[in-house]
Amino acid sequence: MHVTIIGAGGMVGSKLATRLAEDGQLGEKAIAKVTLVDVVEPTPPADAPFEIETIATDLSAPGVGASLVAPRPDVIFHLAAIVSGEAETDFEKGYRVNLDGTRGLFDAVQAFSNHYVPRVVFTSSIGVFGAPFPEAIPDDFHLTPLTSYGTQKTIGELLLADYTRRGFMDGVGIRLPTISVRPGKPNKAASGFFSNIIREPLAGKEAVLPVSEETRHWHASPRSAVNFLIHAATLDGEAIGPRRNLTMPGISVTVGEQIDALRKVAGDNVVKRIRHEPDEMIMGIVKGWPQRFDPQRALALGFQAEARFEENIRIHIEDELDGNFVA
Amino acid sequence: MHVTIIGAGGMVGSKLATRLAEDGQLGEKAIAKVTLVDVVEPTPPADAPFEIETIATDLSAPGVGASLVAPRPDVIFHLAAIVSGEAETDFEKGYRVNLDGTRGLFDAVQAFSNHYVPRVVFTSSIGVFGAPFPEAIPDDFHLTPLTSYGTQKTIGELLLADYTRRGFMDGVGIRLPTISVRPGKPNKAASGFFSNIIREPLAGKEAVLPVSEETRHWHASPRSAVNFLIHAATLDGEAIGPRRNLTMPGISVTVGEQIDALRKVAGDNVVKRIRHEPDEMIMGIVKGWPQRFDPQRALALGFQAEARFEENIRIHIEDELDGNFVA
Repeated sequence: MHVTIIGAGGMVGSKLATRLAEDGQLGEKAIAKVTLVDVVEPTPPADAPFEIETIATDLSAPGVGASLVAPRPDVIFHLAAIVSGEAETDFEKGYRVNLDGTRGLFDAVQAFSNHYVPRVVFTSSIGVFGAPFPEAIPDDFHLTPLTSYGTQKTIGELLLADYTRRGFMDGVGIRLPTISVRPGKPNKAASGFFSNIIREPLAGKEAVLPVSEETRHWHASPRSAVNFLIHAATLDGEAIGPRRNLTMPGISVTVGEQIDALRKVAGDNVVKRIRHEPDEMIMGIVKGWPQRFDPQRALALGFQAEARFEENIRIHIEDELDGNFVA
Repeated sequence: MHVTIIGAGGMVGSKLATRLAEDGQLGEKAIAKVTLVDVVEPTPPADAPFEIETIATDLSAPGVGASLVAPRPDVIFHLAAIVSGEAETDFEKGYRVNLDGTRGLFDAVQAFSNHYVPRVVFTSSIGVFGAPFPEAIPDDFHLTPLTSYGTQKTIGELLLADYTRRGFMDGVGIRLPTISVRPGKPNKAASGFFSNIIREPLAGKEAVLPVSEETRHWHASPRSAVNFLIHAATLDGEAIGPRRNLTMPGISVTVGEQIDALRKVAGDNVVKRIRHEPDEMIMGIVKGWPQRFDPQRALALGFQAEARFEENIRIHIEDELDGNFVA
């Protein structure tokens, strides 16, 4: 089978490519070829048992969707997006990439839909929801995004559901939790601290916590994110039904519980590297974010995330730090 | 003030224009000019106390949105749409008119948004919801349209909310119930029978009922639809908050209750003109439609519909039949 990953240069996309290279198959089917697409040429995973093609292109440019769909990949992972912060500061770019890029891809699939109906896995976000929220957000809660990014992701979900209903494609949208512990350097994303306070202390560095320890949020590990994508790619479409967009499972913890978990896994010395420095602006932004979901549909369909935040930390130590941290 | 109605040739749009001509004002403000826009040149209402301009144009054509927004109307009613049936049979046209046309208009408003923030009233539809439903659909029920029309209306709602949040416009989206009693000739819309079974018998003609009398649905009169539009145009935006799309009130009745109301208002002779002729296809379509809402937000904001279906019938007799019917 031929698998195409659009947005393969990102953190989740490159982990997905690595995982496919390790498995050599997707579900029961052997992979013959993987096409990796991003605006900058993606780095292919080492030792892949299949052909790898890398393409540097901008999905939002005219004709690009059609060129990616023309070889008729069996599965298309569409992970490419302008992130939340940039979609908010650059209105035009966010709509062009996140809405027009996604629609261009789906329209290309539609144009080829005579005898070709690929599984399309689309990464949406819990940003499709906007406060105020009930204590646990149910699967049938309305979509009232409070960011342009969330709006664009919601529109992608709607197009995916309609194009699937019409038989143009076989789409599954998955709303990813905040990915914790996110590897890499600290960034300026408002959500960055959720990972910074774990990753930096484990590396022997100081991290800043800009919110109170009572702040509750919804997390899943990068490993779970890859598992979600693979499960979404191989799931029986009939079992999903017409509501093709699913809130992924995660773990609801407060920052205080995150820190307790870090203490259990790595000890008090590591925890002492977290510096409390309240930031009113970040506290204001985070207040509007979801805290807890009740993702019954995804759980019933077999999606699984971590049960305790210690696991998120251990996964980070295993997958990113070769099992070591600075005690 | 200057008011522009896009989709002014349709049933609701022309009634709105007539109402504005009668009132001479919108809320507290005198109307100086009304621009009526549709694909076919709209007929202006008689005896209007303000300037009327009529424009025949296609909102989905390039540059049309900008040309309509350039005179900076204070209020824009955007009612133009390809209807549900046609949006389903003509995929390309539905998306072009209902999505690209709406986005083109909103983008034009955004382009002028420096010192210009008009109230934009957008007619959405209960088609943004898709079965299965709870017994009464709450305001926070998720949007899972099961038609391309419903998908396009939902996307319009999302754009309206985001463009309003960003300060580009001051939008209000209203989800209209099925309009009953709809004047005019019987049409092939799957929902046509809800009005046909009242309107035709009152005109001395036979009407076909293709579903069972237990079929329940959500109705408001054309007069209420115009009231909703005017209320949405004059409502305090602060009172609405960030969730700018509202399910309009209506009355939930079964077809049997509609027929009982017709009997009360017009007598048994009129009711006898309804012929029962079950149509499996129509019954299948209607089964997926909403039956009842709990539109608490719209009610709290002062939107009002009929309390009894007899009122819908009396309004039809008053507004369309000069108070007379064929007994």
